[in-house]
Amino acid sequence: MTAVYQFQEWLQNHSARTETALDCLLDSAHTIPARLHEAIRYAAQGGGKRIRPLLVYAAGSLGDAQAGVLDAAACAIECIHAYSLVHDDLPCMDDDDLRRGLPTVHKAFDEATALLVGDALQTRAFEILAHAPCDADTRLRMISALAAASGSRGMAGGQAIDLESVGKKLDLAGLKQMHALKTGALLSCAVELGGIAAHLDRSQMTHLQNYSAALGLAFQIVDDVLDATADSQTLGKTAGKDAANAKPTYVTLMGLDYAQKQAQELQLVALASLDNFGSKAQALKDLALLVVNRGK
Amino acid sequence: MTAVYQFQEWLQNHSARTETALDCLLDSAHTIPARLHEAIRYAAQGGGKRIRPLLVYAAGSLGDAQAGVLDAAACAIECIHAYSLVHDDLPCMDDDDLRRGLPTVHKAFDEATALLVGDALQTRAFEILAHAPCDADTRLRMISALAAASGSRGMAGGQAIDLESVGKKLDLAGLKQMHALKTGALLSCAVELGGIAAHLDRSQMTHLQNYSAALGLAFQIVDDVLDATADSQTLGKTAGKDAANAKPTYVTLMGLDYAQKQAQELQLVALASLDNFGSKAQALKDLALLVVNRGK
Repeated sequence: MTAVYQFQEWLQNHSARTETALDCLLDSAHTIPARLHEAIRYAAQGGGKRIRPLLVYAAGSLGDAQAGVLDAAACAIECIHAYSLVHDDLPCMDDDDLRRGLPTVHKAFDEATALLVGDALQTRAFEILAHAPCDADTRLRMISALAAASGSRGMAGGQAIDLESVGKKLDLAGLKQMHALKTGALLSCAVELGGIAAHLDRSQMTHLQNYSAALGLAFQIVDDVLDATADSQTLGKTAGKDAANAKPTYVTLMGLDYAQKQAQELQLVALASLDNFGSKAQALKDLALLVVNRGK
Repeated sequence: MTAVYQFQEWLQNHSARTETALDCLLDSAHTIPARLHEAIRYAAQGGGKRIRPLLVYAAGSLGDAQAGVLDAAACAIECIHAYSLVHDDLPCMDDDDLRRGLPTVHKAFDEATALLVGDALQTRAFEILAHAPCDADTRLRMISALAAASGSRGMAGGQAIDLESVGKKLDLAGLKQMHALKTGALLSCAVELGGIAAHLDRSQMTHLQNYSAALGLAFQIVDDVLDATADSQTLGKTAGKDAANAKPTYVTLMGLDYAQKQAQELQLVALASLDNFGSKAQALKDLALLVVNRGK
């Protein structure tokens, strides 16, 4: 009971810390051009679970990461995540009107502004890391990791595979590869950024990679399960879109039961890969539980 | 006569070098996802004048820049430029079907792919700089400069001001500010990257900034003049679009004569700001002449 309470406190503290860091590191809504900066803040500050920043902070606590460096890494990865959502919601992609229970950026503003918001958020992510308060090598390692995870061999590549897969019979291997890039790469990167900031050694980073790989896949499976079972109000976005778009998902491909069991198994793998870190990894463990059990 | 011929040779050599560097630094068209990487190459390798890479090389020759560093900087800035064109051409922005005499990316592929191509090209620009073959501080200075020039306080900000200005009576000061961000920031950044790679001192960088400010404005004025006077075939893109969209330009605001005189005056300012560099600045001088006299 105490442990649960402590994690809730950790969650609240680090979610609040993310909001404060974003507020500090994004340009004010009065900066010219004001409408663009207002829209950027709307996109990045519209709530959300902040899973990626939380993973940065949790991984950072495994070593000697400095607070300001983790704040920069948390904001940078959330800027990339926010940009991907804004572009994903555009009519030429998923054409979504609702995100986190609010109108998407192109609905609240307009399509051209939404395009620029995503573009500028990506730029800002790299700019924030370039100015992180740590040595040059650490900043460059973080920039390289974020670029690799979000570019054409990472998140954007996963989105391209997703586009190509609509209406096709993707097999389990293909589905896993798509998810590994589209969602997994950035989640793994969040953990990696925390590890880099904490100056972990190579063997520790490998354990973190095992944790992230399992967590990333579990995250997407749970997403698919929720899309198939929850309603739009609970999700804060349009539910049942995958089935409507004939997109292959874990649920359509393997059935609901199998998908739920897989998520539970992956959770165990994620937890086991943290064994060497002892109690320092408690936040990462709790986040794995949170990810797999969300919506329950 | 000899000088003109030498510059032509310099141009050919450095244009070819840009193409080779892009070919090396972009993922092959067979990298998975293949369609995305093919589209990325289509966007970045579709020709164009390569003004920004040429400015990088020309500024780099003022000091002791290493070849591989200039290649990385040239490619990075061209990736940002190419991404901005792909997104600019989308239906929600300028809705252009033609670019450099070829179908735009969303016409040759599709809108969603074009969106991802622009996103991934931006990421690749920062990734290339993060791996440039030079010390960490120089890489970080280049990344910071490129981010500042292309983000919401640079190129993307200028595009947002441009969007807001459609159908409005923008005055000369407003027009200059819009151009300074939309086109000027990235041109200046090209020169700056060359200067950073060449380890120029602060005073030398200031002279370069004066050169770039004049060149950037001249570049846009000449663009406006060409849009008003040339045909689509000569331009390789749809001509007369500014007037059709009721966009304020130097020509609509100040008249054709005044615009042409301004471009000539700015060319003189650009040339004068290079006086301290002597013959080493010949390529930068020749590029200023090229920019102002193109289309003639």
